[in-house]
Amino acid sequence: MKTLQENLAALATLPLGLHGQDFLLTWEKTDEEIRALTLVADSLARLHRARKSIRVFDTGLAVSIFRDNSTRTRFSFASAANALGLAVADLDEGKSQIAHGETVRETANMIAFTAETIGIRDDMYLGEGNRYMREVAAAVQEGYERGVLHQRPSVINLQCDLDHPTQSVADLMHLRNHFGSLEQLRGRKIAMTWAYSPSYGKPLSVPQGIIGLLTRFGMHVTLAHPEGYGLIPDVVDLARRNAGRSGGSFALAGSMEEAFQDADVVYPKSWAPYAVMQQRTPLLKRGDQAGLKALERDCLAQNARYQAWECDARKMKLTREGRGIYLHCLPADISGVSCERGEVTADVFEQHRLATYQEASQKPFVIAAMILLSRVRDPVATLRALIEGTPVKS
Amino acid sequence: MKTLQENLAALATLPLGLHGQDFLLTWEKTDEEIRALTLVADSLARLHRARKSIRVFDTGLAVSIFRDNSTRTRFSFASAANALGLAVADLDEGKSQIAHGETVRETANMIAFTAETIGIRDDMYLGEGNRYMREVAAAVQEGYERGVLHQRPSVINLQCDLDHPTQSVADLMHLRNHFGSLEQLRGRKIAMTWAYSPSYGKPLSVPQGIIGLLTRFGMHVTLAHPEGYGLIPDVVDLARRNAGRSGGSFALAGSMEEAFQDADVVYPKSWAPYAVMQQRTPLLKRGDQAGLKALERDCLAQNARYQAWECDARKMKLTREGRGIYLHCLPADISGVSCERGEVTADVFEQHRLATYQEASQKPFVIAAMILLSRVRDPVATLRALIEGTPVKS
Amino acid sequence: MKTLQENLAALATLPLGLHGQDFLLTWEKTDEEIRALTLVADSLARLHRARKSIRVFDTGLAVSIFRDNSTRTRFSFASAANALGLAVADLDEGKSQIAHGETVRETANMIAFTAETIGIRDDMYLGEGNRYMREVAAAVQEGYERGVLHQRPSVINLQCDLDHPTQSVADLMHLRNHFGSLEQLRGRKIAMTWAYSPSYGKPLSVPQGIIGLLTRFGMHVTLAHPEGYGLIPDVVDLARRNAGRSGGSFALAGSMEEAFQDADVVYPKSWAPYAVMQQRTPLLKRGDQAGLKALERDCLAQNARYQAWECDARKMKLTREGRGIYLHCLPADISGVSCERGEVTADVFEQHRLATYQEASQKPFVIAAMILLSRVRDPVATLRALIEGTPVKS
Repeated sequence: MKTLQENLAALATLPLGLHGQDFLLTWEKTDEEIRALTLVADSLARLHRARKSIRVFDTGLAVSIFRDNSTRTRFSFASAANALGLAVADLDEGKSQIAHGETVRETANMIAFTAETIGIRDDMYLGEGNRYMREVAAAVQEGYERGVLHQRPSVINLQCDLDHPTQSVADLMHLRNHFGSLEQLRGRKIAMTWAYSPSYGKPLSVPQGIIGLLTRFGMHVTLAHPEGYGLIPDVVDLARRNAGRSGGSFALAGSMEEAFQDADVVYPKSWAPYAVMQQRTPLLKRGDQAGLKALERDCLAQNARYQAWECDARKMKLTREGRGIYLHCLPADISGVSCERGEVTADVFEQHRLATYQEASQKPFVIAAMILLSRVRDPVATLRALIEGTPVKS
Repeated sequence: MKTLQENLAALATLPLGLHGQDFLLTWEKTDEEIRALTLVADSLARLHRARKSIRVFDTGLAVSIFRDNSTRTRFSFASAANALGLAVADLDEGKSQIAHGETVRETANMIAFTAETIGIRDDMYLGEGNRYMREVAAAVQEGYERGVLHQRPSVINLQCDLDHPTQSVADLMHLRNHFGSLEQLRGRKIAMTWAYSPSYGKPLSVPQGIIGLLTRFGMHVTLAHPEGYGLIPDVVDLARRNAGRSGGSFALAGSMEEAFQDADVVYPKSWAPYAVMQQRTPLLKRGDQAGLKALERDCLAQNARYQAWECDARKMKLTREGRGIYLHCLPADISGVSCERGEVTADVFEQHRLATYQEASQKPFVIAAMILLSRVRDPVATLRALIEGTPVKS
Repeated sequence: MKTLQENLAALATLPLGLHGQDFLLTWEKTDEEIRALTLVADSLARLHRARKSIRVFDTGLAVSIFRDNSTRTRFSFASAANALGLAVADLDEGKSQIAHGETVRETANMIAFTAETIGIRDDMYLGEGNRYMREVAAAVQEGYERGVLHQRPSVINLQCDLDHPTQSVADLMHLRNHFGSLEQLRGRKIAMTWAYSPSYGKPLSVPQGIIGLLTRFGMHVTLAHPEGYGLIPDVVDLARRNAGRSGGSFALAGSMEEAFQDADVVYPKSWAPYAVMQQRTPLLKRGDQAGLKALERDCLAQNARYQAWECDARKMKLTREGRGIYLHCLPADISGVSCERGEVTADVFEQHRLATYQEASQKPFVIAAMILLSRVRDPVATLRALIEGTPVKS
């Protein structure tokens, strides 16, 4: 593990193009930028663990827009914002409905007069979430250019229909910490597999985020799911291209067992079929409750055929030396605990439980690193000042 | 435009009576106090634009009480509070119903133990909102005098039934910036006119705030509305008296066209007839849904007769050299955008859109200036310390 | 009254075992620890009154979990957290349901990555609230030990089924301030008595907190209630044992008049019978609305037989020299004000109204002292730095 000073030395060698930029998709960022992000996130986590302040702002708002319920991401964002010195101001859509066009343009500016960053979670509608984030980003860009805003807040994707970058980078940090470095990920096998859950409509962004990111580090990524549970084809193509470039590989498998074979890492997690999400979006939009109910019934019936896609001790034995590590974005559907039959058996989960908490514990620092890199011109100098306890409040 | 140092020099010449005071109605404040407010608001905006901290409190609460939904004012208040170093604590009335008498007295004290300011929005009931604010102010005054509170938080009117001072002063700042100074407003004509909207029950406080404030700077203020859409008579009288004193004028007009004639500034905006608000208050109080429904139907039918009161390019041509500027408190009802037919056509709004955002961008700094002036004993010294980067946390 | 320096001198002589500890029940703390708590609370209140910063954290979250509506405790917690430099992050259970077992363990860690403290109010279910707090405490302890959390947040009881320590210690502070010192409480008589209210289901934690705490200071504590309105027997036993040890006394009385006789302090306050709370818990758990309705009806009918249990001027005359002081946790049910007939007459309440506000004003500083003592290793050094204006941000 690199020390703080080593982190700074490594960071200083990287071309840093993240200042003034949004963080909407990992695959829009260069390998160097992802590497810089992990170095900053790790540095902030180390400083925090040493009870050193990582405050870089004196005041400023971190606006959050959650278009879905969320506890974990909400607290990770609040933790990151607060640790950097920002106050969270939540745009509660129960109180203020946001639509498109002029409403988005105007609201984005009205909430951003003193905002340094805007974190958005919008993962319900295929084809909508990421688009909405770009609309907000364009609005604050225009507001900044035209003198409405004194600063251009960055827009951070806290989960959309395409990607979940704060999760996937937290997972990457966890693997980096486990295996020792990003370099040590090369040649490792990860199984990103569908798992049974007695619910439906879970977003695709976690598995898409994983295959879109981990294929960039020379890993062998296997995606497994029952027939009909495919991800967005463009993202699958992207994963394949990433793997080609990085010297890793990307493969599809038809069973959890096949994917787990010799895996160093497994990530069994439920998601909705792409096709279901496509049907669901217009139903949600027009508030067709009967249609949604029927779709849910069909989808749960389809799911029920795949109850064997459960991560259990027998399948874990198939992993490399039977010692593969287990990832989950939490909360997991644990058989006999949170549901009758779910994604993972209680014994397997219990064995990896605290490791999944540690995995999640990366997220506040990943978000903080995204904010810091988007808003601070010289992150090396900023981190150095934090280490020396003489933070430059910007 | 005055520079920061010029602002301070001008501020130093003004008698400052705002310390320890609430800000409930612009017409309770002297011309010098309004002038001081604009100087402080402008100074804070300039400091913020230069990315200098305007923090004057180390800790402390800024309590907000919103008895209506609000996004824009909520974020402006949050921005102001945070920039000054205060944390917003919202008294959510969904969770804690506030009435009158002992309940108000007690609650006002219970929320104020560490509060520096209390911002209140209460504009639903004619004759109630401002009265409620005074009840809260009296309660914290008593609490302070009797040793319950260690400090006397100021009460800031974030919109009531009578006035909307944070809006009207923001509008004043916008005009001051546009025309160069408060002195440059003298002799300019502003048309505050009713405009059609497919909704009803919008508060009177915006037009009342405008005619109550802008008549004090030598402007020629014309108020126009259809018959039956009059404002509270006392406020209209006040505007007339203001105009007499300031060397400006106050006139009534019967059409948008008449009001727009040679206007330097137009402010077309829907509001409910005073008479409707009077009928609505008892219906709201006793929760008479059928009565409210009937009133809404009648009122919308009445409104519909005045769809021609729409700000369009043809009417804008009537303004001085066809180049009058357009104000709105946002969000506007834009024809073909946010509704079929509304207050303003899409082309006129689009031409002035970013200017309305700039107008709104004054509000956080106006609110911050109100808080600062109410709580800081020597604002010149405080601003000087902010300029020098050695803020005195009070 | 001791001065700040005297507080520090006294504090320096006390064994301090509160660092790293939760605050869940006053009766788990030693007399010295309670004494230390009052010294720190008093010191923080004095500093705040002198407008000196009591900030000891640069950043950090104070997580709140309110499983009931609350305004007063919510604002006291927010005031305390903010004054110490922490930002409140509320886990809104409307948005995120918390259950037991893995859900609690996981959620407790997910909200605590940067939390210094977690304040919990959970007083609805007999046998549940305090247990839930211990579950959260065990979860963050495990997370801290296993490297998930960089710090172990303290858990603060903001009212449970057993105790309401922030209230009872605030009441103790109020008595200490009134009579001059904790020592001056010795030999004073306090009447903790049930009072009539046209509501039911009020928690037992206030009277239990009072008899559990004030019996430790040599006071003569009389508990009075109608037959069938007993408290949890274990707590009553504890009060009796406390009184024996402290040289005070603990007595039961069958009428308000008997209890008020020669009392220095009276605390007339409604609560639900223990037996009703026992019946209510399973009804609440299974959401049995009809059962709850029936229980409410029975309970209100039973209550109605005791309308004479009202604190009025005639009964106040029975107190020592007719000048006993009146305590209440607020809001009181005031006859003719907040209800037709209630706990106290309007004239008695009005006479003591501002004193009850002062009583409540102790709470933010008691909570701040609990947080500070749980998180700061050397509170004497910390307070000394605050006095000198050179706070050590920890």
